Amino acid sequence: MSRIDGRTPNQLRPVTIERGWSKHAEGSVLVSFGDTKVLCTASVTEGVPRWRKGSGEGWVTAEYAMLPRATNTRGDRESVKGRIGGRTHEISRLIGRSLRAVIDYKALGENTIVLDCDVLQADGGTRTAAITGAYIALADAVAWAQGKKIVKPGRKPLTGTVAAVSVGIVAGVPLLDLRYEEDVRADTDMNVVCTGDGRFVEVQGTAEAEPFARAELDSLLDLAQTGCAELAGLQREALGIALER
Amino acid sequence: MSRIDGRTPNQLRPVTIERGWSKHAEGSVLVSFGDTKVLCTASVTEGVPRWRKGSGEGWVTAEYAMLPRATNTRGDRESVKGRIGGRTHEISRLIGRSLRAVIDYKALGENTIVLDCDVLQADGGTRTAAITGAYIALADAVAWAQGKKIVKPGRKPLTGTVAAVSVGIVAGVPLLDLRYEEDVRADTDMNVVCTGDGRFVEVQGTAEAEPFARAELDSLLDLAQTGCAELAGLQREALGIALER
Amino acid sequence: MSRIDGRTPNQLRPVTIERGWSKHAEGSVLVSFGDTKVLCTASVTEGVPRWRKGSGEGWVTAEYAMLPRATNTRGDRESVKGRIGGRTHEISRLIGRSLRAVIDYKALGENTIVLDCDVLQADGGTRTAAITGAYIALADAVAWAQGKKIVKPGRKPLTGTVAAVSVGIVAGVPLLDLRYEEDVRADTDMNVVCTGDGRFVEVQGTAEAEPFARAELDSLLDLAQTGCAELAGLQREALGIALER
Amino acid sequence: MSRIDGRTPNQLRPVTIERGWSKHAEGSVLVSFGDTKVLCTASVTEGVPRWRKGSGEGWVTAEYAMLPRATNTRGDRESVKGRIGGRTHEISRLIGRSLRAVIDYKALGENTIVLDCDVLQADGGTRTAAITGAYIALADAVAWAQGKKIVKPGRKPLTGTVAAVSVGIVAGVPLLDLRYEEDVRADTDMNVVCTGDGRFVEVQGTAEAEPFARAELDSLLDLAQTGCAELAGLQREALGIALER
Amino acid sequence: MSRIDGRTPNQLRPVTIERGWSKHAEGSVLVSFGDTKVLCTASVTEGVPRWRKGSGEGWVTAEYAMLPRATNTRGDRESVKGRIGGRTHEISRLIGRSLRAVIDYKALGENTIVLDCDVLQADGGTRTAAITGAYIALADAVAWAQGKKIVKPGRKPLTGTVAAVSVGIVAGVPLLDLRYEEDVRADTDMNVVCTGDGRFVEVQGTAEAEPFARAELDSLLDLAQTGCAELAGLQREALGIALER
Amino acid sequence: MSRIDGRTPNQLRPVTIERGWSKHAEGSVLVSFGDTKVLCTASVTEGVPRWRKGSGEGWVTAEYAMLPRATNTRGDRESVKGRIGGRTHEISRLIGRSLRAVIDYKALGENTIVLDCDVLQADGGTRTAAITGAYIALADAVAWAQGKKIVKPGRKPLTGTVAAVSVGIVAGVPLLDLRYEEDVRADTDMNVVCTGDGRFVEVQGTAEAEPFARAELDSLLDLAQTGCAELAGLQREALGIALER
Repeated sequence: MSRIDGRTPNQLRPVTIERGWSKHAEGSVLVSFGDTKVLCTASVTEGVPRWRKGSGEGWVTAEYAMLPRATNTRGDRESVKGRIGGRTHEISRLIGRSLRAVIDYKALGENTIVLDCDVLQADGGTRTAAITGAYIALADAVAWAQGKKIVKPGRKPLTGTVAAVSVGIVAGVPLLDLRYEEDVRADTDMNVVCTGDGRFVEVQGTAEAEPFARAELDSLLDLAQTGCAELAGLQREALGIALER
Repeated sequence: MSRIDGRTPNQLRPVTIERGWSKHAEGSVLVSFGDTKVLCTASVTEGVPRWRKGSGEGWVTAEYAMLPRATNTRGDRESVKGRIGGRTHEISRLIGRSLRAVIDYKALGENTIVLDCDVLQADGGTRTAAITGAYIALADAVAWAQGKKIVKPGRKPLTGTVAAVSVGIVAGVPLLDLRYEEDVRADTDMNVVCTGDGRFVEVQGTAEAEPFARAELDSLLDLAQTGCAELAGLQREALGIALER
Repeated sequence: MSRIDGRTPNQLRPVTIERGWSKHAEGSVLVSFGDTKVLCTASVTEGVPRWRKGSGEGWVTAEYAMLPRATNTRGDRESVKGRIGGRTHEISRLIGRSLRAVIDYKALGENTIVLDCDVLQADGGTRTAAITGAYIALADAVAWAQGKKIVKPGRKPLTGTVAAVSVGIVAGVPLLDLRYEEDVRADTDMNVVCTGDGRFVEVQGTAEAEPFARAELDSLLDLAQTGCAELAGLQREALGIALER
Repeated sequence: MSRIDGRTPNQLRPVTIERGWSKHAEGSVLVSFGDTKVLCTASVTEGVPRWRKGSGEGWVTAEYAMLPRATNTRGDRESVKGRIGGRTHEISRLIGRSLRAVIDYKALGENTIVLDCDVLQADGGTRTAAITGAYIALADAVAWAQGKKIVKPGRKPLTGTVAAVSVGIVAGVPLLDLRYEEDVRADTDMNVVCTGDGRFVEVQGTAEAEPFARAELDSLLDLAQTGCAELAGLQREALGIALER
Repeated sequence: MSRIDGRTPNQLRPVTIERGWSKHAEGSVLVSFGDTKVLCTASVTEGVPRWRKGSGEGWVTAEYAMLPRATNTRGDRESVKGRIGGRTHEISRLIGRSLRAVIDYKALGENTIVLDCDVLQADGGTRTAAITGAYIALADAVAWAQGKKIVKPGRKPLTGTVAAVSVGIVAGVPLLDLRYEEDVRADTDMNVVCTGDGRFVEVQGTAEAEPFARAELDSLLDLAQTGCAELAGLQREALGIALER
Repeated sequence: MSRIDGRTPNQLRPVTIERGWSKHAEGSVLVSFGDTKVLCTASVTEGVPRWRKGSGEGWVTAEYAMLPRATNTRGDRESVKGRIGGRTHEISRLIGRSLRAVIDYKALGENTIVLDCDVLQADGGTRTAAITGAYIALADAVAWAQGKKIVKPGRKPLTGTVAAVSVGIVAGVPLLDLRYEEDVRADTDMNVVCTGDGRFVEVQGTAEAEPFARAELDSLLDLAQTGCAELAGLQREALGIALER
């Protein structure tokens, strides 16, 4: 069986990570997983939300959104509707938790970093591209804060790297990094977030049509771990290149 | 190591399923997992949402909410705040997907069933209790619709049973069906939804503190499958008792 | 003429008052007036709203809501609609005023008690059941606050008891404590809130069809005073029983 | 005891009713009860809300609001806050019910009349001035609809007149038509809506400080009936003068 | 060509300015431009919004709204819709900017003046009438604040006068101060705000049908300057008359 | 005097127009005016809003928004705040009016085109860049609709071209196409929208500090006409290049 774009089942789409995309943000990345393009910016502010004041600890949070015509048919703006939908809430929370998994709050000190992940074009895997790109923006923002001494000298707020990928079973075959057309046809759909050392931060699997057996679940987890490891390599490579701005 | 309430690591809390709790709803259950109490009602209406009209297929959806003082400290009402929070959205969507996994839309015909899961008292595991109880309310509502010929004779809208349980790793030990105090202390927290035949509908695992290794994930999945199987037995037992109203 | 449930015109429905229903709230009551069931919880917090700070006086407020399927046909959730309806607002305000009528703010000190009245099942008289039950929850919360020394020793924040009942004229006959089916057929509908010593806190009478004459109003007030006196007796009885939790 | 403005306890403030205030509305009145000034407009539209279509019956509804600086200190606009407060909801509903009490829906036919009551200046009794003025605007709108044959010839949608007044007990003395300063000092505050034939449409009495005894309630009802009768006379007089526009 | 109301192209409608309309507000004006009537109130409060605290400077802001039946057909209330429309936002901002153009923030000191402009009846030019009237209310409020020593002695917060007028091209002819029927037929519509010394504060021109040439723009600006100068004269006259309240 | 980026007073920033940026939208452009970058997409749908049905005429509308970190400091998302701000409303309306000025609704037929203008990076002139870029996206969408026969053969919905530029007076000198730092220092700020034939669609001038004299206004209009003419040339050039996607 060959995939619509000719990939093998365990092959990622071409991934690009464009650092320093924005002149304003402390960290910014335009990440693409094939035709999925997400602009991730990291904004550093001194101070923390009220409930965390005086703790000596920092905070990291994320907001995800799609431009109205990121998709094949135009969606109404949530700002116009006056309320955020369940899917947006869910993904924003997922991204926030994923990035907090590699943050040492004490080392960050009472500073806040907000990750904004705005999908400019969608073709499946927007949340996994967002997490993978936001990590780079976060790393750049942390480096910026260290350079500005907002983070105290010697402190290392980042405890590791984090990346994410989608996997799914389409026509009985487990596939890595689904495009939109594959996602629609998947019986099971799973998003997996891993740290660079191969451990899990989030596992979210859903039976879209038929419930799935333990053996299927195991094969999807295997595939996701491979994909996340490959993405972690690309992240290391991207961060190795000096950022010019 | 013994748990705060003396349970063994793989032991559920006492589960009660009180069918026919409400005189108005087509199906209603007051379910308890220990001190967690959720009132689940199923409302049948003829017709489907606009986007599904003319398809010949039905629809099942769910809404989850907590009473303000279901928890240890009072939470503001979402109706007063004028917006639904991310957590509420996320759980409502999870319950809906879980129940739709055992529905044959064609057999249901163009009818809608809404499951309302209102947490009257919370002590951990509110979403898993909600799914487990809502299944019973759904089964009763389907039976009611069959009795009223709203569902056509011979059609079987329910394709199986579904139940859910939480698992987590506390102080290095995988535990089944966490109470609130255990949940707070868990390094990893996972909610698993299974059908009565032991397959998975949803797997949602989150690293609360440290990322978790594949072996830990595997042990949690084992534990959850056992717990769901036991809940499926309790569901069968509850439905075996004739409902008097 | 006999009523649908065989009661005489001046007879209350069976009333049950289940104290200590919730393990979390400082006061909690599941009250029923026939098939109307309302869960009332009282939450004590130290401190008062901003506009009252430094006054040395406390505050008591109430919020009323219905579960979506408390009624015969499912109502949309106000949290989902994003706004609270006029009826909800009106009843919440009525309950708050009714309970504040028996509170000595000075004796309460700068503490706040919030009464949440959630209708689990509705069959007419939900607001009057809510007031009658919330009084018990309030009394228990005040006792708790006295026990915790949050209320200063020797202070008595409660100055009396308060209960409420509905009355109405159906087919020319004044009836006490209307069920939903009676309420729908009533020409005049009145809710009356009285203190235990027989004085009035609130009188809200509405002509549903025909305007009503002074004589009719007088007979309704007579009936309501009798009903409230009987409810006050039941409240005293309920509070006489030691609360076990 | 003399009142702040020299009135006797059972004396109304000067009442003015200026018909035909607006060039656009089908009925419009600028009503004043002393310094309280309310602009009441009646808007006729053919057709009824969806839930009433095909019934052959009309509908009458009302909306009440205050300009931000109608009061002594400026209030925030409800449009800016994005939600209508409980007090506004409550009064809008009261006005609507009061006017519907004198409407024959069948005679009105499938037409809707909306009464807008906007308080331009407030000095107590805004809701009672609104009802009293809105009745005149309603009567003019009905006459307009009869003239345009929107109401069928020979049909009389108005079955009577309706007016409202506030009463209260201040320093032990029952007073008619309270100004703001009296209202603030009142122990008991009651709004009463009567038809022109002296029957009651609404009775809403509230103990502001002390609960009130039956004898006090009776004296307030006496006073209110007198006041409403006087207002009914002023309404008849206002409608007797031909409307020039 | 003669205009619907017999005016010459460069003639204003009759303008009335009724100062001291409200007994509560520090400044208040009922302004009319023909049948357009706007109630403008100015509310003075000590203190400034948070972002301006400690600056030693004051703030002036404005809110514009229409009563639902100010227009020929009833509009829904923005408070009921739960959101403010774009047009309302736009005009409120325009009025605020226009008045701030003649304010010396330092001389005002840390005080805030809010201008509320509520359209009671609309017949074109509501925003220009609002600005012209609000200026008078502002001047009265400033005088009040000077009298109360809220503004320091010797300080002059007002640096000039400001007025506004609409102009437009109807059937090829530039017209001053459009009525609603003219506005609807205009190819080009412009609102111009000028200070009393003939300079511009705001110029907002819009091609309603055909784009307009520079020569047309120039003729409209000429007309607007004439109109504003005439309004400035009426404002001076109105302020010359001692305010009796 | 030299400008911060070395431009002459009447020089535009470098303008880039990248057509066909999105694979989903019927027309899409990434436009930049210096560091200001706006993604403009045009979405074609058959049918028109309800109020226009049966007219035989089409509709064009626009929505403008900024990504949270498009600016130097992060702004809160309007979707999270639950309401759209006045500035957003105002600019969305301006863009819509500007593009409708070159649309022949009859020729478009009952089709709707929505222009989404999302600012990815802001450095002054976001609304003028948005209009200039949206015109190209609109032209591409119209061509697409003609190709698909959604627009009837022979019909030409576009009647001309439209572009926009900002002008302002900084330190006494009229400048074309202000960057953010210039905009902040401007005494007068004007946005001008012109058609390709040099006529005006919108003129919006605001005195930020001092009111401006007629002579200043005239010089700004001259400058803006020059700038718009140059942009019209760039638009023609961009559309001359065949679109590859």
